[in-house]
Formats: sequence, structure tokens, C-alpha cells
Amino acid sequence: MRPAACDHPRMPALTDPTPVSRETPPDPPPWFRVHLFACTNRRPDGHRRGSCAARGGEGLRDYLKARAKELGIPGIRVNSAGCLDRCEFGPVVVIYPEGVWYRAETREDVDEILTVHLQGGGRVPRLMLTERHLPPAG
Amino acid sequence: MRPAACDHPRMPALTDPTPVSRETPPDPPPWFRVHLFACTNRRPDGHRRGSCAARGGEGLRDYLKARAKELGIPGIRVNSAGCLDRCEFGPVVVIYPEGVWYRAETREDVDEILTVHLQGGGRVPRLMLTERHLPPAG
Repeated sequence: MRPAACDHPRMPALTDPTPVSRETPPDPPPWFRVHLFACTNRRPDGHRRGSCAARGGEGLRDYLKARAKELGIPGIRVNSAGCLDRCEFGPVVVIYPEGVWYRAETREDVDEILTVHLQGGGRVPRLMLTERHLPPAG
Repeated sequence: MRPAACDHPRMPALTDPTPVSRETPPDPPPWFRVHLFACTNRRPDGHRRGSCAARGGEGLRDYLKARAKELGIPGIRVNSAGCLDRCEFGPVVVIYPEGVWYRAETREDVDEILTVHLQGGGRVPRLMLTERHLPPAG
């Protein structure tokens, strides 16, 4: 027979006396504060989608790297990436962890992204890709 | 003479009658739900840091792409990246927006990352790089 609930009025609530944590530990801290990927994919000339390299992506990636270093932006890593699949709007870059995309066509564009977004924590709406930047149908 | 504060007891608090929003609009929704970058950087044989390509990074990137497609993981993009600078622990991949890094040395490692992390939303601690994975001094 089970004892009535009132048999042990001072008994604590049922808890595991030696709890084993089953929680997933938190993710490690970000390795890079800012991780920027510049598309440098090259398609053959005349491809209907074009490509970031054909639009100058490699030179802009080089400039980005050099300027980021020059400005001393802390915790930043600039990497080349393969095709980011937003070719029509290239040369494109994407900045993580925030996942903000930009079209950077000129050195002035790169400078604006570096100073306004990466140094100032703002955004550059005139260069930003949004959900309305869709690849053409077909 | 400035009027006393009690001269206009019903005067509302000073607010701009025609406020112009100066707030930054929210960032666009993520273009990819999961953006995975696999390092495929290659250094010359014998380089003291080694490189992800020398450790099989390219083949693993290909396998990752193919398996992600096969499993039908929605909203994923797998890209190659240039040197992610954690060479000693390669072949490395990093998954954004969460910024979690893994060392994926075998196809089984790739499968575990795909099923546990990307499909299940979990983590694979045995393969995860943490803040303790530091490049050797010098």
C-alpha cells in the first residue's frame, strides 16, 4: 500500500539527488567577430547569369582585405567564396553572423561598407540586397 | 524671462508633432537558412601549418554538397571558401548564422554533421572546434 501523501510532511519535492546535466552546452564564442565572404566565382564569358569574377569580384576582394587591415577593424576575416548564387547582383559579399548581403561594385562601395557597417555598426541601404533581389525567372 | 514650469499645466511633453522615423529598417530575412563554408585552401606540401585541401578538404566539400542535396536539407547552401585560418584543425567547415565550426575528416563525420546539426538542430561535440582550438604559438 502506498503511503498517503501526508505521511512525510517534511519530505522534499521529488528531485534527482545527483542530477546529470542533459543540456547541450552553449556554442563556443564566435571565432571571428565579423566573417565576410566575397564571391569570386568565375563563369565563362557570355554565361546568361554572368559571375562575380567577371564583374570584378577578385579585385574588390583584394581591396576589401587590404582596406580592412589598413583600417584595423578588429576580429574581421575576409574570405573568398565560391558561387553564392546571387550572380545577377554581383559582385556580392555576405557578412556573418548577421547575414547581410551587399553588392560592392567599386572601391567607394567597399569603403562605405567597411566604415558604415563594419566600423559603425550601421547599414548601407543603397548597396544592400534584400528578399526582393530575386534571380530572373527561367 | 522663462515661464515657470507650472504656467501651462496641460501642455503635453515635448514631442515632434510629425515624427520622421530615423530607425534603421530591420535586416532582410536570411537568404539561406544555413550557409556552410568548407575550407578548400591548398598550401604547398610541407608547409608547417598544412592546409585543408592537403587534408582532403576538396573531396569532403564535394561529398557535403552531394549529401546535403540527397538528404533534401531545405534552405542550405554549401560553399567553398579560401583559407579560414584554422588550418591545424582541418579540414574545417563553419556553419552560419550560428558560427559553429567543425573538423570533418571523413564521410562519416560529414554525415553526422548533416544529420545531427543541420537536420536535427543539435551539435556534434566530438567534432566541434572551440575557443581552446588555438593555433600553435610561433
